[in-house]
Amino acid sequence: MKTYLECIPCFIRQSLELARMVTDDPDLRERLMRESLKMAQSLDFSDSPPALAQKMHRRAREISGVSDPYLEAKIKFNRFALNLYPELDAMVRQSRDPFETAVRLAIAGNIIDFGVKLALKDEEVHHSIEQALEAPLDRDAVTALRDAIERSSSILYLGDNAGEIVLDRLLIELLPRHKVAFVVKGAPIINDALMEDAREAGITDLVEVIDSGAAVPGTILSECSPGFQERFEAADLVIAKGQGNYETLSEEDKHIFFLLKAKCPVIAQDIGCEIGSINILEKRTASKVPS
Amino acid sequence: MKTYLECIPCFIRQSLELARMVTDDPDLRERLMRESLKMAQSLDFSDSPPALAQKMHRRAREISGVSDPYLEAKIKFNRFALNLYPELDAMVRQSRDPFETAVRLAIAGNIIDFGVKLALKDEEVHHSIEQALEAPLDRDAVTALRDAIERSSSILYLGDNAGEIVLDRLLIELLPRHKVAFVVKGAPIINDALMEDAREAGITDLVEVIDSGAAVPGTILSECSPGFQERFEAADLVIAKGQGNYETLSEEDKHIFFLLKAKCPVIAQDIGCEIGSINILEKRTASKVPS
Repeated sequence: MKTYLECIPCFIRQSLELARMVTDDPDLRERLMRESLKMAQSLDFSDSPPALAQKMHRRAREISGVSDPYLEAKIKFNRFALNLYPELDAMVRQSRDPFETAVRLAIAGNIIDFGVKLALKDEEVHHSIEQALEAPLDRDAVTALRDAIERSSSILYLGDNAGEIVLDRLLIELLPRHKVAFVVKGAPIINDALMEDAREAGITDLVEVIDSGAAVPGTILSECSPGFQERFEAADLVIAKGQGNYETLSEEDKHIFFLLKAKCPVIAQDIGCEIGSINILEKRTASKVPS
Repeated sequence: MKTYLECIPCFIRQSLELARMVTDDPDLRERLMRESLKMAQSLDFSDSPPALAQKMHRRAREISGVSDPYLEAKIKFNRFALNLYPELDAMVRQSRDPFETAVRLAIAGNIIDFGVKLALKDEEVHHSIEQALEAPLDRDAVTALRDAIERSSSILYLGDNAGEIVLDRLLIELLPRHKVAFVVKGAPIINDALMEDAREAGITDLVEVIDSGAAVPGTILSECSPGFQERFEAADLVIAKGQGNYETLSEEDKHIFFLLKAKCPVIAQDIGCEIGSINILEKRTASKVPS
């Protein structure tokens, strides 16, 4: 997905939040804001939104020396989600269709996205879970995902945020685990999950976990490590969580299921869905359409 | 009031709204956004927020050739408020304290501020009115305003927005009109009231109406016409409506009553009030404190 003009005010809001996170020094905050405005000014709109986010955060790290400003918040949301886990796990097991319930809950967890909303409250996560269990969901897409998983021999599950990945675990538990690799980011970027978050969430005990090699809130393949690029190329199915992965991979010629909550008007318009809706979007390859 | 770092995302949001208002051409919109980002980048934070708004809107006029993008919306809100007028007028007359009720309604009208919120709905104006009639209001400030009006021989009433000024009229009707001059902006800026709005609102039939000579969403004295500057200097009391006038005049050495609804977190913090609250703030001169 390209960057829309409508993304710009959101970037600038994020850059203010970032400046406040990394320093208390008013002069440094001002400098960071001016640098972000400059980057936005020379933005290439054909890039996806996470490309600018990456640059903005890199510059903030360089200027402030703070490498992981969201660390505390990531730990907090991992713990919060782990506390919910037993109840959600029981919910999945007792439901009429555990796979669909796990899909819904994994998407519900996508509310924990500090790029969209930094001051997220616990209640909003609870609300997102309740809503995801009841909300309309494309049943055909659920079936297509189920079938694709069964047919695939190598599945990459691109994780999104800390905390959220605990809810992904519900779904991962139901997958043919030997076929699955879970992907985290290569270095801190917003509240995106890293290897230590996957460990904290218990995912490293379930499936192979690899990292993308990049500090991008999404998956810009050219920024990823050669090792990850090979894995991506080799996978016959990708399950991609969250807006950032949609923004960076929606035009990729790959069989991908995007699982996300549409949290911003730009994404909702690009997808053609309501803001707040839960979505499974199948992207088929142009070359070989899966039967 | 100086510009806070927190004002920047709001500027950029406004610049996007402005770009959409003045043109349908995506390239022109992009150019306008880039220009606004550039202006924000080189911003002098010791200037008040309306100074940047003025520059941004001037550049948009130059680039797009559209001189008054909010004209239609201004006409709409004038009509909307005029339709409410008879009912509000009766409310004032029948109230226990017509002056205080008129003050409350004048402040309620300050919700009609497209700088803060462009997509304002009629219901929000109704809600603002209901809230203003019930909300806590500094009674001592009401008394101080009443006394100051009585004592003053020359009063400047700085209007704010189209539509809103119809609610100001309720208060103007109760003032010693021969002492009052109502002030509109010198040229189009956001939805700020101009001479034709004052005429439409019926204010030109009540009191002298002059313009500031500037296209600033507030009152930056150095930008105003020499004629207005003289009038400002000569007035012994200023009643200043809205956030923009507060932002530009809060540090002026002048006896001013600011009547405003605090609609943004930055202003609320600067004043030390709740967002959404209605406020009368008295600014006394340093030289001679009114007894």
